[in-house]
Amino acid sequence: MTPEEFRAAGHVLVDWIADHRARVPDLPVAAQVRPGEVRDALPAHAPDQPESFADVLADLDRVVVPGVTQTQHPGFYGWFPSNASLASVLGDIASGGIGALGITWQSAPALTEVEQVVTDWLRDLCGLSPQWRGAIQDTASTACLVAMLAARERASDGSEHRGGLQALDAPLVAYTSPHAHSSVPKAVLLAGYGADNLRYVDVDPVTYAMDPEALRRAMAEDAAAGRVPAVVVAAVGTTGTTAMDPVRAIVDVAGEHGAWVHVDAAMAGSAMLLPEMRHLVDGVEGADSLAWNPHKWMGTILDTSLLYVRDVDHLVSVMSTTPSYLLASTDAEVVQYKDWGIPLGRRFRALKLWFHLRLDGVEAIRARLRRDLANARWFAEQVGAEPGWRVLAPVELQTVCVRHEPEGLDGDALDAHTLAWVEAVNATGRAFLGASRLDGRWMVRVSVGAEATEREDVEALWALLREVVAGPAA
Amino acid sequence: MTPEEFRAAGHVLVDWIADHRARVPDLPVAAQVRPGEVRDALPAHAPDQPESFADVLADLDRVVVPGVTQTQHPGFYGWFPSNASLASVLGDIASGGIGALGITWQSAPALTEVEQVVTDWLRDLCGLSPQWRGAIQDTASTACLVAMLAARERASDGSEHRGGLQALDAPLVAYTSPHAHSSVPKAVLLAGYGADNLRYVDVDPVTYAMDPEALRRAMAEDAAAGRVPAVVVAAVGTTGTTAMDPVRAIVDVAGEHGAWVHVDAAMAGSAMLLPEMRHLVDGVEGADSLAWNPHKWMGTILDTSLLYVRDVDHLVSVMSTTPSYLLASTDAEVVQYKDWGIPLGRRFRALKLWFHLRLDGVEAIRARLRRDLANARWFAEQVGAEPGWRVLAPVELQTVCVRHEPEGLDGDALDAHTLAWVEAVNATGRAFLGASRLDGRWMVRVSVGAEATEREDVEALWALLREVVAGPAA
Repeated sequence: MTPEEFRAAGHVLVDWIADHRARVPDLPVAAQVRPGEVRDALPAHAPDQPESFADVLADLDRVVVPGVTQTQHPGFYGWFPSNASLASVLGDIASGGIGALGITWQSAPALTEVEQVVTDWLRDLCGLSPQWRGAIQDTASTACLVAMLAARERASDGSEHRGGLQALDAPLVAYTSPHAHSSVPKAVLLAGYGADNLRYVDVDPVTYAMDPEALRRAMAEDAAAGRVPAVVVAAVGTTGTTAMDPVRAIVDVAGEHGAWVHVDAAMAGSAMLLPEMRHLVDGVEGADSLAWNPHKWMGTILDTSLLYVRDVDHLVSVMSTTPSYLLASTDAEVVQYKDWGIPLGRRFRALKLWFHLRLDGVEAIRARLRRDLANARWFAEQVGAEPGWRVLAPVELQTVCVRHEPEGLDGDALDAHTLAWVEAVNATGRAFLGASRLDGRWMVRVSVGAEATEREDVEALWALLREVVAGPAA
Repeated sequence: MTPEEFRAAGHVLVDWIADHRARVPDLPVAAQVRPGEVRDALPAHAPDQPESFADVLADLDRVVVPGVTQTQHPGFYGWFPSNASLASVLGDIASGGIGALGITWQSAPALTEVEQVVTDWLRDLCGLSPQWRGAIQDTASTACLVAMLAARERASDGSEHRGGLQALDAPLVAYTSPHAHSSVPKAVLLAGYGADNLRYVDVDPVTYAMDPEALRRAMAEDAAAGRVPAVVVAAVGTTGTTAMDPVRAIVDVAGEHGAWVHVDAAMAGSAMLLPEMRHLVDGVEGADSLAWNPHKWMGTILDTSLLYVRDVDHLVSVMSTTPSYLLASTDAEVVQYKDWGIPLGRRFRALKLWFHLRLDGVEAIRARLRRDLANARWFAEQVGAEPGWRVLAPVELQTVCVRHEPEGLDGDALDAHTLAWVEAVNATGRAFLGASRLDGRWMVRVSVGAEATEREDVEALWALLREVVAGPAA
């Protein structure tokens, strides 16, 4: 495709995107297709000859859009916010247009240095000290795996460069909350610790936050048995209820064993942009690594996850490979992000953050986050004040865990009721909520924070919820 | 940013990209900045208030473009091709505009199913049998790590679900070529095998391809010593010289020990699109996993790496995590790509491939690959016929390894000469070549295959090389 053909198609596509984003509020929030429906709508083989851009574009409307849950919809309250702010989309488009290859500093100095600049910007905006240095990862799952590998190598004194994990005498042990994100146990297992060496530490029964005394006991028990407490993952906050593991106390306990502390703030990290919310990560300066996702609440489009570490030299010792075809005379003076994570090559993802922060400005982003916190508090107040409804966990952030508990309904019957009404809400197409289990029972998560969600949308949601549980669908 | 603001800025940006791509041939190929220059050109803090789009765009010209090595330039012969075809850029733009969240099938059925469709399309286009199923990874580095983890778990009967790698009695061993990409030893080390359990198998001194008999001896020796031969990575082709490890023989040898075979065809995979080139991967149907990068030669923009496996169930058993907040009633009927790799969340990367294949058509892509193969052969013929010049390795693909060897120059003096003339070539801004070490000495890689590179460009390169070595710069 020539630049002129791209120009013509690009203009059409930009209009399509602007029109699409404008109509999102009129679309059903949840994807409306059945398994296999999208596949069945597409040909079995790639075309030998070029198709027209109009045909491809028509397929976006015909096949793709109905097959996407509209996370940019004002009625999206599922999982966590997954904002794709249009300012960041422009940065992503610029990245594609430039088509740079990020394998070393030399291959694209600007790709490396803009990433240094924006990760420093965000570090400062979050109130973190300059001891932290960051890089963009695809997701917090990958960031967590990188942290588990860095912790493994610190605790084993660089075993990967000798006999590996399989040559260790004393097994390394990892600790986390049973409410931590599923990517945490996955990372521990992939890093080779083994499920037998993963401890789920007890949590407070009301706040669902990790109990540091339980952590102290677990670590002491392992140490006494000849095992090596290697790493603690603090969830700030947890996926189910946004519970906040107490970082300062965890850092203290971990410090008694020299264990690495990784703070998984994938969702809550955006709140660090607000000075009044930083108490949630009190003590973070004593941790070893910290991950958070601008691609969630803050709204820089996927995939934009930040991993900050204090000891870059250690991370590089774990991740570095420098074959002769990548050597360059400037190596000593520059950062090589290939040595800060798993992939060698990277996109120019820093442009997404750069455009987002510059085109929206920090104050507007902060104002939106504060709006969402207020909306979540308002919603929690309504639910808490309504007979038959209950807020099930502290609202630390913007996610409210709720249940409708009609008189006389409990156990499996209550579970069935919960799943029925959340399904009925989602079937309206006007809102999308997720169900999750807490203390062995289903509950519903209302995760406020789509960029488009205003107070009136949350009011409409609350009306819809009461309407649905009162109606025949429930 | 509102859709209308996006519309206005998006049109300007599309024009900027079209203009930029049109002027790339007039830019110097290699980035012309010194370490720190880009950072120094940017402010230390993010702006509180929005900046204008015009200001941000101006910074692309002022700061970013001079800081990027122009991989889309017709004079780019560095590393490997890193094409970013404009058809695929359109798909990437659509992905950003839609802003979908790929965490489960339910979050975006179309994201999952279009990925199934395009990975099946490419499997068939490469002549692979339907036993293979694929997913998009960011890079071949990550794909290789996934393969090392899958191999580890097969050889250890799922040790991650018990005591982990650290509880094994007999160490697992990995085998690869000393010419394999640096991501291979990195993946082996990260997966926990340990450097002591990584064997670099001898290669043929002329072709630089792995010697299967040497592999057989190494595996037998480990087995006799009580170690477990777990995985072999076959490089097809290697990064330095595109040497082709013999897959069929490797599969046979590995089969004697039940070892996993991963085929790293990051670069050469694109050649599988050409039926006449598939002899390079003869025997691949007996391997366990195969990775190749459409984001290299084929030209679907970064990051588009494909990992195919034969035993999806095994991969899922290694990678799966399903917390309650991700459960859905359709789980049994759909693919959950979160269980096929490391990250939970994924972008709608399949659109890049979908747009690329549909808008360019398969025949045009194949014609371009054939053009590059012919250009590389032509270049190798010129070099081979010119006194004082030498082609150092078989030209299996589109990369030609050359050296200018003036009478009486050898050892360190020859190395200095090589590095001087390649630097002089790159300093012209008209071409970009990479140096690499082979048999202990520097040589120069001419990796033909930028989308823009025509025969006349390769002719100009050859003239430039002779001019430079004849001139005062050398």
